[in-house]
Amino acid sequence: MRVALGLQYNGEAFCGWQTQPQMPNVQDTLESALQQFTRYPIATVCAGRTDTGVHATHQVVDFLSPVDRPLASWVRGVNTFLPSTVSVRWARVVPEDFSARFSATERTYEYWLLNDPVRDPLTEGKVGWVFRPCDEVKMQQAADLLLGEHDFSSFRASECQAKSPVRIMHEITVRRRGRFIAIRLRANAFLHHMVRNIVGSLVYVGTGRENLDWFEKVFRACDRRLAAPTFAAGGLYLVGVRYPEAFNLPQYSPCQWDFPA
Amino acid sequence: MRVALGLQYNGEAFCGWQTQPQMPNVQDTLESALQQFTRYPIATVCAGRTDTGVHATHQVVDFLSPVDRPLASWVRGVNTFLPSTVSVRWARVVPEDFSARFSATERTYEYWLLNDPVRDPLTEGKVGWVFRPCDEVKMQQAADLLLGEHDFSSFRASECQAKSPVRIMHEITVRRRGRFIAIRLRANAFLHHMVRNIVGSLVYVGTGRENLDWFEKVFRACDRRLAAPTFAAGGLYLVGVRYPEAFNLPQYSPCQWDFPA
Repeated sequence: MRVALGLQYNGEAFCGWQTQPQMPNVQDTLESALQQFTRYPIATVCAGRTDTGVHATHQVVDFLSPVDRPLASWVRGVNTFLPSTVSVRWARVVPEDFSARFSATERTYEYWLLNDPVRDPLTEGKVGWVFRPCDEVKMQQAADLLLGEHDFSSFRASECQAKSPVRIMHEITVRRRGRFIAIRLRANAFLHHMVRNIVGSLVYVGTGRENLDWFEKVFRACDRRLAAPTFAAGGLYLVGVRYPEAFNLPQYSPCQWDFPA
Repeated sequence: MRVALGLQYNGEAFCGWQTQPQMPNVQDTLESALQQFTRYPIATVCAGRTDTGVHATHQVVDFLSPVDRPLASWVRGVNTFLPSTVSVRWARVVPEDFSARFSATERTYEYWLLNDPVRDPLTEGKVGWVFRPCDEVKMQQAADLLLGEHDFSSFRASECQAKSPVRIMHEITVRRRGRFIAIRLRANAFLHHMVRNIVGSLVYVGTGRENLDWFEKVFRACDRRLAAPTFAAGGLYLVGVRYPEAFNLPQYSPCQWDFPA
């Protein structure tokens, strides 16, 4: 049977999702827990490979399981074998042809900024820090330019391995919540470092270092060298993945600061 | 001149406030930074000595400075010499007779619970975790019994060195914020482990393990052996200290989840 799991993890503890020798990573950690739980070696695939330091509230993985277990026990049982830095939040049985990666039609990331003149020891590693006053309305105006289907080369890491730099941005919302500014981006898929590069340039606009014209020029140029530096990994969260309705999977899990007041 | 500073720190990085050999502590860390900044050895006194793992958004310290510096430079300059786990948020010049400890008339602590069936890697070390459904209204009813001047022996650690177990509780408020429950306690002073012991017993009432009568009996008995176990250090924050108005000091700094929506 094929099983899908919803995972949360603290990216500070890992060199990203992907398995690599001698480095703590989410994939090896999960696969080791699955092996302890099922007594079989298990290979997983994920919806969005996160980098070093990047968090997830809603990573989706799938795997073929040689054993049949109640759904609740996939959550409780696997959590027993996971360190405190990762947890399984839900489990579902999915059809044989489901792939956490290839069946996904949309990913949602959020970037959380702390906008405060003094650095904050209590949110360190969980937010990007902007110490200058930052105008979220200006950021939204710039962000609106990214909506729709575009070549995102200006916000693409040089090591990005995607075949095409074209992505479809469905939503990009900038909200202030107290000292925080949250930027939610929903697209069919993302290029390597795309969110953190977009955030870097949005912050230039928000703090008044650059204006809207600059942002538009950078975006249209399709040239990474013009944009602002990549923003810190610690503010980035994979918060949602959408699949065709037939799979009936949870789609989103909020960040810690995103709750009804 | 005598200087008062407002400090924030991540308690996970320290064995508490107080200086002790071979153990990372906030006091040594701050005094070392002050010495690097001023080039003189400096001894500090704090408003509320926090235990291992306990955080502060608003710790107040004072010291005699042999040098005269602009207030803004006490913040920026000292922060340069502090690790990322501590920061100075504000600085004020205070009269010679001010003492962060002895001039304080009230302390405010908050305890943040995460009420969620699955453990959360992203708030680990920053909250206490309650996986059973927890009724904040019942908790408030129990908490109301603690208002006023009482013998708090039932919630006092055996190693507590205070002369009297009597304290005056001015406020104790239980609020739900999404998945979180925040308990704010304001008193003239607190006994050792008092907040974490109160929280342990309030959670027993909130989850329905015990009822209001049990809580009242435990409280009136003045016997620590009857109360619930001490709750986790990571959910506790020193968030406010009040001094006589004449000193004109900031009184409170909110926790990360406590912002206008």
